[in-house]
Amino acid sequence: VASNVVIRNIERADQAVIDRLGRAGVATAHEAYGRRGLLEPSIRPRQVGAAIAGSAVTVLCPPGDNMMLHAVVEVLQPGDIVVVSTTSESNDAMFGDLLATSFMAYGAVGLIIEAGVRDTATLREMGFPVWSKVVHAQGTVKATPGSVNVPMVCGGVSVTPGDVVIADDDGAMIVSRAEAELTLDEAEKRLEQETATRERLQTGELGLDLYGMRERLEGLGVNWIDSTDEV
Amino acid sequence: VASNVVIRNIERADQAVIDRLGRAGVATAHEAYGRRGLLEPSIRPRQVGAAIAGSAVTVLCPPGDNMMLHAVVEVLQPGDIVVVSTTSESNDAMFGDLLATSFMAYGAVGLIIEAGVRDTATLREMGFPVWSKVVHAQGTVKATPGSVNVPMVCGGVSVTPGDVVIADDDGAMIVSRAEAELTLDEAEKRLEQETATRERLQTGELGLDLYGMRERLEGLGVNWIDSTDEV
Amino acid sequence: VASNVVIRNIERADQAVIDRLGRAGVATAHEAYGRRGLLEPSIRPRQVGAAIAGSAVTVLCPPGDNMMLHAVVEVLQPGDIVVVSTTSESNDAMFGDLLATSFMAYGAVGLIIEAGVRDTATLREMGFPVWSKVVHAQGTVKATPGSVNVPMVCGGVSVTPGDVVIADDDGAMIVSRAEAELTLDEAEKRLEQETATRERLQTGELGLDLYGMRERLEGLGVNWIDSTDEV
Amino acid sequence: VASNVVIRNIERADQAVIDRLGRAGVATAHEAYGRRGLLEPSIRPRQVGAAIAGSAVTVLCPPGDNMMLHAVVEVLQPGDIVVVSTTSESNDAMFGDLLATSFMAYGAVGLIIEAGVRDTATLREMGFPVWSKVVHAQGTVKATPGSVNVPMVCGGVSVTPGDVVIADDDGAMIVSRAEAELTLDEAEKRLEQETATRERLQTGELGLDLYGMRERLEGLGVNWIDSTDEV
Amino acid sequence: VASNVVIRNIERADQAVIDRLGRAGVATAHEAYGRRGLLEPSIRPRQVGAAIAGSAVTVLCPPGDNMMLHAVVEVLQPGDIVVVSTTSESNDAMFGDLLATSFMAYGAVGLIIEAGVRDTATLREMGFPVWSKVVHAQGTVKATPGSVNVPMVCGGVSVTPGDVVIADDDGAMIVSRAEAELTLDEAEKRLEQETATRERLQTGELGLDLYGMRERLEGLGVNWIDSTDEV
Amino acid sequence: VASNVVIRNIERADQAVIDRLGRAGVATAHEAYGRRGLLEPSIRPRQVGAAIAGSAVTVLCPPGDNMMLHAVVEVLQPGDIVVVSTTSESNDAMFGDLLATSFMAYGAVGLIIEAGVRDTATLREMGFPVWSKVVHAQGTVKATPGSVNVPMVCGGVSVTPGDVVIADDDGAMIVSRAEAELTLDEAEKRLEQETATRERLQTGELGLDLYGMRERLEGLGVNWIDSTDEV
Repeated sequence: VASNVVIRNIERADQAVIDRLGRAGVATAHEAYGRRGLLEPSIRPRQVGAAIAGSAVTVLCPPGDNMMLHAVVEVLQPGDIVVVSTTSESNDAMFGDLLATSFMAYGAVGLIIEAGVRDTATLREMGFPVWSKVVHAQGTVKATPGSVNVPMVCGGVSVTPGDVVIADDDGAMIVSRAEAELTLDEAEKRLEQETATRERLQTGELGLDLYGMRERLEGLGVNWIDSTDEV
Repeated sequence: VASNVVIRNIERADQAVIDRLGRAGVATAHEAYGRRGLLEPSIRPRQVGAAIAGSAVTVLCPPGDNMMLHAVVEVLQPGDIVVVSTTSESNDAMFGDLLATSFMAYGAVGLIIEAGVRDTATLREMGFPVWSKVVHAQGTVKATPGSVNVPMVCGGVSVTPGDVVIADDDGAMIVSRAEAELTLDEAEKRLEQETATRERLQTGELGLDLYGMRERLEGLGVNWIDSTDEV
Repeated sequence: VASNVVIRNIERADQAVIDRLGRAGVATAHEAYGRRGLLEPSIRPRQVGAAIAGSAVTVLCPPGDNMMLHAVVEVLQPGDIVVVSTTSESNDAMFGDLLATSFMAYGAVGLIIEAGVRDTATLREMGFPVWSKVVHAQGTVKATPGSVNVPMVCGGVSVTPGDVVIADDDGAMIVSRAEAELTLDEAEKRLEQETATRERLQTGELGLDLYGMRERLEGLGVNWIDSTDEV
Repeated sequence: VASNVVIRNIERADQAVIDRLGRAGVATAHEAYGRRGLLEPSIRPRQVGAAIAGSAVTVLCPPGDNMMLHAVVEVLQPGDIVVVSTTSESNDAMFGDLLATSFMAYGAVGLIIEAGVRDTATLREMGFPVWSKVVHAQGTVKATPGSVNVPMVCGGVSVTPGDVVIADDDGAMIVSRAEAELTLDEAEKRLEQETATRERLQTGELGLDLYGMRERLEGLGVNWIDSTDEV
Repeated sequence: VASNVVIRNIERADQAVIDRLGRAGVATAHEAYGRRGLLEPSIRPRQVGAAIAGSAVTVLCPPGDNMMLHAVVEVLQPGDIVVVSTTSESNDAMFGDLLATSFMAYGAVGLIIEAGVRDTATLREMGFPVWSKVVHAQGTVKATPGSVNVPMVCGGVSVTPGDVVIADDDGAMIVSRAEAELTLDEAEKRLEQETATRERLQTGELGLDLYGMRERLEGLGVNWIDSTDEV
Repeated sequence: VASNVVIRNIERADQAVIDRLGRAGVATAHEAYGRRGLLEPSIRPRQVGAAIAGSAVTVLCPPGDNMMLHAVVEVLQPGDIVVVSTTSESNDAMFGDLLATSFMAYGAVGLIIEAGVRDTATLREMGFPVWSKVVHAQGTVKATPGSVNVPMVCGGVSVTPGDVVIADDDGAMIVSRAEAELTLDEAEKRLEQETATRERLQTGELGLDLYGMRERLEGLGVNWIDSTDEV
């Protein structure tokens, strides 16, 4: 049974693809990816307005022990996003401004963690964005090992090292490396369509008609009634 | 058993009354309304500083299906607030920037939803305020019908179409159309009193004496003691 | 069985110690205090960027009844922080802008409450910071007594009147009066060390080596592997 | 604004209809009622195997105050089920064995409460079934009034006094008095069908074919594949 | 700063007092103790029908680490109840059938734990009752120390070693050693009164009149109305 | 992007291995598997005393739509356990006694579902055990497709079709097919050791000494003190 390993090298998706997925944003990329990959809404941004995309470097820690977050630093590459999960539920602060300093020194662009973070005011000043389950200053020990760059589950979603992570004000999501390009194509098509649709909706055209839903609703037995008096 | 209907026309309260209730704000209107009508605190603002009031147009959706949010658009009138509930618990994003575009084109001024919303950064740019249970990008299907403008429960409170909705940084509340004016009178009286009270409190006068609570506490057996040594 | 008392006078820690603990901040003071004293993460700041420290004046209320928050005002001294708990779980708004006006008139610098607050927009304008379990406008009655300045539990932590309270964007914590100075010494040592460490980390030096964790991890059986192919 | 009233007399549904709805059970009656009326799953049975139906007598209490549960006793009639809600969220024990003694003396057959209960071992011995949000011994005061037999929301569902309540191991639900008979007819039809369907399913016949879902799934683009190798 | 200690000897309350408090039960003892001392309702019995009382031996553990539960065994005395808390929130199983075997060998009569337990089927067979936050099989490490017999908070209540613990189907509570006898006197008085009251209520006498609440409600403005038509 | 497929055939582990893992139970198998594979504690047994093991047949449904639970029946084989997840969070009852009749006709021995179940009284009578997030009677639609026998996440754990599922009163867990035998060997070794250890603990021998933890604690700085007076 493989455990307690640090995998130094992983395959990453093409950076241009990653960057464009980041510009598409979580909501659009999630639709483009077949409505998959979205982390549970308990994983929330701890700043307003940050929008990032990068390659997932995964860290699996015991609850209340952040030693592996120190071990991950030397395998980071510019553009990486560190994704952290614990082997059982924890709200402890596994991450603060000192680790953020190290992460930035090695080029990481953000953190997604199913646990707590602290030093949030300093992190915002430093411009290092985090998505976490809670903000909590609770300190951790450094006594029990875990793993770096193994597949794991974070926020209810399977993450493989090297997957693409996208995160913004709407939350965070994972796109598998193999499907990144296909998802990007689909996402950019959607963005174009959305721009066109937005213009029509602004003039008062109805999505109900635009998308053919009026007929569908009629077929499903919905009745339009002028007022409650008729019910 | 009536279900799956779209009611086109509803009675609304007087717009001047609505506007003045909005200026009173949720906390004061809630007191004026006999401490009723307040939605559960899980329904939170997804922006800072928005304060609105309007007429409730209700939408009842199946979980994970936002088709009725498209059906509601054509019955909206300027000043309306769309209030959305699901037939069973859901955190999915039933609402995003495209629907907001339609809602704004028809004059709606906000959304209250016991489910999720997405595109929150864009919604803030557009100036369309939302109060929701979560922020979650999770997409929905368009397969199963629901209803527009039927009575329903949202955030633990009964809502009848045409009720007055008030929402600000403190949350969201419902005032029945029939009681809107009475509530406004009471709210404006309270605002005046609060201004007077505030001035007295600023000078150090005690609410304990101002409201006659010192006697009440004595009557209830409270003891004032100089220090712990005396206990 | 002592209950329903208002204790007028309490011992407070030295104000200079309190102020310096506030500058150290919650995360550092929590580490310096042996990772104790931190309130549960459900107690969150209701503004961004406030950082305070002060002496705990405690208030214990029945659920849904804020009468004792009026009784506490006259025992407040400049620099105090009011810490509020309820005898059973409650989300009601025990505190709003009028009470804040009184609290400020007597010099209180903040509120920590395991219940709800309202008038949050006004509180931010007034510059009176609060940490609470929820924002909820729900009004309370004034019918049943409680106590002021008795020991109690707030956010899972024992609080004795006169303890030092520290609160910022990371949450809120309690340091016992007797241990305040010792904790400050330790906290200031840590701040110095952190500044030195931060500089080294910025240059790319690894915490893994800096803290001797590489050897510890090897001793615990962690394996470094070049790539997944080797697993 | 009407509040703080005790309504002595309410209309009830036909007892034979109520009894037969009880025999249909919550799951079947809920389907027969158009999948409406079900209380949130947080309202759970505090015994195993009880199954009841009766007329809703409603009680609305302030949080932490059970005075109105004493006021309701004299308006109870044999077969009634008391449905309790609080004006804001509460987990306090509003009900125990003494109130159950009174309720049984007046013929009530059960309690549904969006709050806590205590004396659960004694309640099971007495044979008085309860459905509650929590079991908690927390005592309450008797200081602030509420109402008996006013419309209210319990477990996310609107309840009007005299509605039919059905509760069993699956939870609790409300059927409006006006729709009770229609719902019963539909429920009994379903029970018959279910018996027939059960027999066919026991022989290995597939619901997929029985309900015509295979074609629907094909129409929706589902692919049947022999093994993962083909994906 | 004292931490990581095992205190071998503690003062315990008189065993006869403890036993009689156990017979009074949690609900009655909680009332007798001034409605204090009750643990949050998240701490639930993991068996049906157990009712115990004993002296609190406290254990404070790091999250996910149960080493101190081994350290506590040799300080146990017949009649003790082990009360466990973690330094930060945890759902891990700190306790199972092997530890229960040791605890029983030293005379402990039960466990209260703000974390998880496992082997629950075996624990029920062994007749060792537990009250816990969750049932979860999640294993723990043995790497980081904690303390035995230090004051701590469990389930939102302060516990001092040697306090009396009472636990039954309604939950668990703490009575301070100093107040145990006084609380027992009050509890036994209540039990007698309750027996008398129960008999009167069984005959249909109303608590409303028995406790003088009818007048109180009238004084508070409650209106009795014959039917909704009069509202 | 593969989705909406039904995979008919999967590889299963050896039935003798599965059966013996079931006899080891969740707690022991979880330790043997390196403390991995355990579902979150929110997934709870809905009966007392059931203990099963089988091969995972997975079903991924949209929220509020159980059509795929009908599609799974014909691919079931004797000894299978159906594991169900939804594409976004849902508490709806996807499963009741009719589906259980079908499942039993095809030899399935249990259900693990991250959603709701109903007809729980009947399920217990039928002897079909279920582990679910909630009990809720809420009905579902049959409108939107999902998949059968695709990899997915359930209760925070990755599940591949054909993995071994073990479930008992402590919860539910997954062991990968590839590691089933190794895990069984380790589990049976542990069972033997536990029997030996249990006998020694029963005589009062201390785990503290048996496992060498006394030295470890001393090394970590724990102090044994006779009484609080010495602190």
